[in-house]
Amino acid sequence: MGVGHSSVSLSLDPISIAAFTAEPKPKPSCFFNTHCKKSVFPTKKNSLFVGFSLKFESLNCGKVAGEMDTEKGIDVANKSILDFHGIDDRLIRKMEFDALVWSSLHGLVVGDRNFQRSGQVPGVGMVHAPIALLPMSFPKSHWKQACELAPIFNELIDRVSLDGKFLQDSLSRTKKVDAFTSRLLDIHSKMLEMNKKEEIRLALHRADYMLDEKTKLLLQIELNTISSSFPGLGCLVTELHRTLLNEYGEDLGLDSKRIPSNTAVGQFSEALAKAWTEYNNPRAVALVVVQTEERNMYDQHWLCTMLKERHNVRTVRKTLAEIDREGQLLPDGTLLVDGQAIAVIYFRAGYAPTDYPSESEWRARLLMEQSSAIKCPSISYHLAGSKKIQQELAKPNMLERFLENKEDIVKLRKCFAGLWSLDDLDIIRKAIDKPELFVMKPQREGGGNNIYGNDVKETLLQLQKEGSEEDAAYILMQRIFPTVSPTILMRDGICHKEHAISELGIYSAYLRNNEKVIMNDQCGYLMRTKIASSNEGGVAAGFAVLDSIYLT
Amino acid sequence: MGVGHSSVSLSLDPISIAAFTAEPKPKPSCFFNTHCKKSVFPTKKNSLFVGFSLKFESLNCGKVAGEMDTEKGIDVANKSILDFHGIDDRLIRKMEFDALVWSSLHGLVVGDRNFQRSGQVPGVGMVHAPIALLPMSFPKSHWKQACELAPIFNELIDRVSLDGKFLQDSLSRTKKVDAFTSRLLDIHSKMLEMNKKEEIRLALHRADYMLDEKTKLLLQIELNTISSSFPGLGCLVTELHRTLLNEYGEDLGLDSKRIPSNTAVGQFSEALAKAWTEYNNPRAVALVVVQTEERNMYDQHWLCTMLKERHNVRTVRKTLAEIDREGQLLPDGTLLVDGQAIAVIYFRAGYAPTDYPSESEWRARLLMEQSSAIKCPSISYHLAGSKKIQQELAKPNMLERFLENKEDIVKLRKCFAGLWSLDDLDIIRKAIDKPELFVMKPQREGGGNNIYGNDVKETLLQLQKEGSEEDAAYILMQRIFPTVSPTILMRDGICHKEHAISELGIYSAYLRNNEKVIMNDQCGYLMRTKIASSNEGGVAAGFAVLDSIYLT
Repeated sequence: MGVGHSSVSLSLDPISIAAFTAEPKPKPSCFFNTHCKKSVFPTKKNSLFVGFSLKFESLNCGKVAGEMDTEKGIDVANKSILDFHGIDDRLIRKMEFDALVWSSLHGLVVGDRNFQRSGQVPGVGMVHAPIALLPMSFPKSHWKQACELAPIFNELIDRVSLDGKFLQDSLSRTKKVDAFTSRLLDIHSKMLEMNKKEEIRLALHRADYMLDEKTKLLLQIELNTISSSFPGLGCLVTELHRTLLNEYGEDLGLDSKRIPSNTAVGQFSEALAKAWTEYNNPRAVALVVVQTEERNMYDQHWLCTMLKERHNVRTVRKTLAEIDREGQLLPDGTLLVDGQAIAVIYFRAGYAPTDYPSESEWRARLLMEQSSAIKCPSISYHLAGSKKIQQELAKPNMLERFLENKEDIVKLRKCFAGLWSLDDLDIIRKAIDKPELFVMKPQREGGGNNIYGNDVKETLLQLQKEGSEEDAAYILMQRIFPTVSPTILMRDGICHKEHAISELGIYSAYLRNNEKVIMNDQCGYLMRTKIASSNEGGVAAGFAVLDSIYLT
Repeated sequence: MGVGHSSVSLSLDPISIAAFTAEPKPKPSCFFNTHCKKSVFPTKKNSLFVGFSLKFESLNCGKVAGEMDTEKGIDVANKSILDFHGIDDRLIRKMEFDALVWSSLHGLVVGDRNFQRSGQVPGVGMVHAPIALLPMSFPKSHWKQACELAPIFNELIDRVSLDGKFLQDSLSRTKKVDAFTSRLLDIHSKMLEMNKKEEIRLALHRADYMLDEKTKLLLQIELNTISSSFPGLGCLVTELHRTLLNEYGEDLGLDSKRIPSNTAVGQFSEALAKAWTEYNNPRAVALVVVQTEERNMYDQHWLCTMLKERHNVRTVRKTLAEIDREGQLLPDGTLLVDGQAIAVIYFRAGYAPTDYPSESEWRARLLMEQSSAIKCPSISYHLAGSKKIQQELAKPNMLERFLENKEDIVKLRKCFAGLWSLDDLDIIRKAIDKPELFVMKPQREGGGNNIYGNDVKETLLQLQKEGSEEDAAYILMQRIFPTVSPTILMRDGICHKEHAISELGIYSAYLRNNEKVIMNDQCGYLMRTKIASSNEGGVAAGFAVLDSIYLT
């Protein structure tokens, strides 16, 4: 849900730390990229921060799609409240050492991309997660705003998910040009035909936002309804930063209490446990659907560990192919995997085309959807999080179709960036005229490959010339320009002083059983920070790290 | 103190997990070897378990040196109370996965020997520590016996350390043939000349024992008075095993409550903190003397983290070379390192000749010894833990020289294995006649390179022929034959079903300020378990793991 994205596309699909880990040589243009080899960042010369060294025009966040204002003049230099580059080198080295030790002892780790088995076997080839050494400043008012939005978005997604016709109609053009969405829609159609009802519905979302430097508006990048990553490691980064400020806060003039507490993993495990309870089969377990290789496995292990230790719910981890092999549907709808009844299915795979290399995986997805197990997410929730649906919901009067509360609608709309389909000729003209203010996003799920700068213009002109249905494969978004701050990032045991931009993710959980809403809460957060620099050759040399926030 | 060692020399100098981590290709004959490249295990064909497949004669643990009985018949097969090899494979796989995940999330990690920077930079190249999947059975009575001995040994070492003449005299012949001991004695002499008194004395010991299969006697292998390793990781293994038994204990017929709690790291940090308090300089810190490369750093980091978090005592880590460069002695005896006053010096280096590659390191050692900082250990404590002193103390009437309490003396002597110097002609004859019942241990510190089997005979005959002072370089020990048990060991993410032997280490802390004994406690434990097999080629294929105990 929510629309928009950033100037450097911090938007990413609902995963994954793989950028640091999966590629033998990480693509310089990736933020957190994924196993599906997508490139989230543009790779063209200077495309990362084009305009940042210049004065440029900016969109004033059309809250209603189609509205568009432009304003002049952004100078992002020297806007940081916390100038970490001014910190004494000796102090940095101390904090760096402490941060590395803390991360190692407290499980703030990922699989090392340089170690072959690190995505398959736990306990081998571990390296500290890429992290910011110190938290990123963030205005308290915007933080509160983001938190308040969480339950409203939860409710919206639930309502949208129940409107099967809306989902099918909105995605009908996308279906023709995107095979992945098409397969998801087929499963969705089957469920509609079967009149399959999901009485118990569980959502574990993460809504991603950026703060637009010029307008000071909190703008939503996307809402992840499947496989929201980093609830585990995100909490640990918060704890690490608090520990460092407890120790060095006086030297730095920073107060650890201004880092908000982060309970994402605890609340996610609570939501899963409550769903398990609603399912009401004490012998059933939770099924975690995983990729065949997962270097971000420890994030998942934290959640499962908490689920076991706090709530005594066991989990089993299976790939889609394994579920196809071992899965079985009982006449009463019970899903058995390897003979074990499944109460809750938690997807940490299945969001990208590459997760379905054969028919086997699609069979598994269908099997699960047909079962009585609680899916996190159901096929409807999954589709409701797609870009096209976000764009549809940004249309005038669309929110009113799903929500009654006027105040809630105003709050949601306030965080919508401009977002348009390519049948809006007026916007197409503006984008050809000022392509630096737009981003083209391919519709296809697990996508990335956003188009920036002059490529926007060229692609639009090409599509106009061809006159095919291909334009349905894209949406056009307002380009967001977040604040650039001096930061200290750590990867592979090495400290980097860089200028960086950040994206705030707000976790939320939603659980209902028929008319009874059991849980509808904001659940902690994740800050991700990415280098905002490009080298002389024009190739973005950036990488992204896990971060927390310091309220200002 | 205490003497003896095992048939496979589980005795090791006071370190270190380096066996798993330091060598590009670990020597198949190492248990925990060290950076000094020593080989703790014999490499000769079949030397690891010669006699284990046969009936053989065994020593009856001469409690007083020179006494020696032999008894017939040991069959170690099928003696294990917990037959882990009978566990269902599916259950093993589950526990294996859980153990690997648990280790990764809870900092039960070491540096991976295959990763270049893993001994230098924290947070990179981590791998789970080598561990036993389940605890090793151990008789409760022997466990109690070992715990009771801890404060008595603490007191004994303290008394011995105060008798400078005894230390110098006992080691006078060793001095001639061992350069390392000679340098330590030189520093010790200087302190005697200066009439330097250590009023505040801190010991963090680990006494290592094996249970002799035939005699059912708990026999001491050695007492480490410097750099006792694994207080941190040892506690974690205990916690891991308890967690596994809480989950799977019912399936296994095992009760997690029978694994004794392990508070080694907490009590060691408490002892260090109390010593820091006694030093009474609030601005001073604790100095951890470290090796230039240390793949067992996380064990040390746990201790320092606890010291900081529980007691608010900061630590700095320095190599001996760095201390030489940055160290300075103030007229009042205060040691400054890099301008920082040092209250307590905790050695995790300096125990082996290889730790002193140049004069620089010896200067650092002397500088520290001259200072008023509390040394853990002082040069006297260090020397009091040497093999020669252990052998001297095993002589008749020697304990009576240092201790008054008759019961304490009886308790100590009961755990002494047979131990003799090479001027005992009667024993030499017996050893030449039945070399399989003895082990020759080189005197030199940081040693290893024990001699077993027929090599004992040959070496003794050679020494007799030469008639040089070289015999002072060795002591002769009773060979201990511990129980062999079926176990499941894990290394590099891979499970191994093996037969193994174990060595129990009992940690203890001792702190006194003049006449006031502030702490004299047993402090948790460490079980180490080692594969008891050799391959067809006769090269020991064993490796060792961290373990805990299951009281029977």
